[in-house]
Amino acid sequence: MDSAPPLSPTARSTVRRNATRARTDRAELYAVLDAGLVGHLGVVLDGAPVVLPTGYGRRGDTLYLHGSTGAATLRAAAAGGPVCFTVTHLDGVVYARSAFHHSMNYRCAVVHGAARLVTDPDERRLGLEVLTEHLAPGSWEATRQPDRKELAATSLLALDLAEASVKVRTGPPGDDEQDLSASVWAGVLPLRTVVGTPEPDPLLPPGIAVPERVAGRALD
Amino acid sequence: MDSAPPLSPTARSTVRRNATRARTDRAELYAVLDAGLVGHLGVVLDGAPVVLPTGYGRRGDTLYLHGSTGAATLRAAAAGGPVCFTVTHLDGVVYARSAFHHSMNYRCAVVHGAARLVTDPDERRLGLEVLTEHLAPGSWEATRQPDRKELAATSLLALDLAEASVKVRTGPPGDDEQDLSASVWAGVLPLRTVVGTPEPDPLLPPGIAVPERVAGRALD
Repeated sequence: MDSAPPLSPTARSTVRRNATRARTDRAELYAVLDAGLVGHLGVVLDGAPVVLPTGYGRRGDTLYLHGSTGAATLRAAAAGGPVCFTVTHLDGVVYARSAFHHSMNYRCAVVHGAARLVTDPDERRLGLEVLTEHLAPGSWEATRQPDRKELAATSLLALDLAEASVKVRTGPPGDDEQDLSASVWAGVLPLRTVVGTPEPDPLLPPGIAVPERVAGRALD
Repeated sequence: MDSAPPLSPTARSTVRRNATRARTDRAELYAVLDAGLVGHLGVVLDGAPVVLPTGYGRRGDTLYLHGSTGAATLRAAAAGGPVCFTVTHLDGVVYARSAFHHSMNYRCAVVHGAARLVTDPDERRLGLEVLTEHLAPGSWEATRQPDRKELAATSLLALDLAEASVKVRTGPPGDDEQDLSASVWAGVLPLRTVVGTPEPDPLLPPGIAVPERVAGRALD
């Protein structure tokens, strides 16, 4: 990670509000992206923004996104128009002594750029492997890989991590000095995402145990 | 809820991909929005989309959003340009017998429209109460309410829920018939967000117990 370039310093990827929350280390960008399962892809359609949840995976400084070839947002992104891809983790509700200073603890990565439609067969297969492994580690090798028809039905996009920003809030509320003596509880209620008990497909033949790649999975 | 109008039938709020996942009952829109803490607000800035996590709250068919008066996205939205506000809950990772049919279970609400900058003092106070109570139920009455300076530093936006769509995926994978006999586990690994143990602000005077509005909080 030491040799990785720092995060982009373009105007739109420079954190202005609460700049002390900005992170400028590329490793932190990777950490926020790698810890998420779904991001929000924004495109412009007919002059208006459209924001949809989108699966992704990262390989180096390339983010792979995919979706149906029929999705209008994917088509707009594939046509080379500007996109924004944002991954947010909510880490806690910040309870303050004043309504104004209530807040959230979070980690957020925002990537700007133009996506590239991946057409090279080898990179398409690699990108789908990266996506599958990000969503479900171990599944690429353990399950049937895409056939020609499935490959044709999938749009794969690559988004370079050249222009990105990371913003993180941690810690207690930032109440005003004069509120600190108030008899009001203040602090953080942590939030986290946990996995539950695996639910087997009702169509599963008898005798197939839950594999370790599922049963042993932990998030973050 | 019975008398509420159905969800919008405009072209861009009509679910096209996997239309069987669309929900058309307005109560489902409310349920998805009310269960979330943060949404992703998309605006168009200099022709490019910008997507940022944004707190919100709902009163009837009005969504209130707020942020600093200095935030460029909020200013763009306040100027009346088109916005898209999306709330997504990730409910599970869907493990299939084929890489292609891996998926996620989720609930997602997408709202399109133009936001309105709220300037009426009474509605501003109401909107901030709605936002605070959505983030931290019970906090509006329990903590110091905004003073004039804090009110001036906050942009409050109202977004009408006139044009919206809801998409939900539940249940097991949709594997192809010919894959069903494979000796590969398939099913759903459920995900949910849970609260942890409240972390008191280190600056809290001794003797202030965690209130029930925090200690007793449950999500979903």
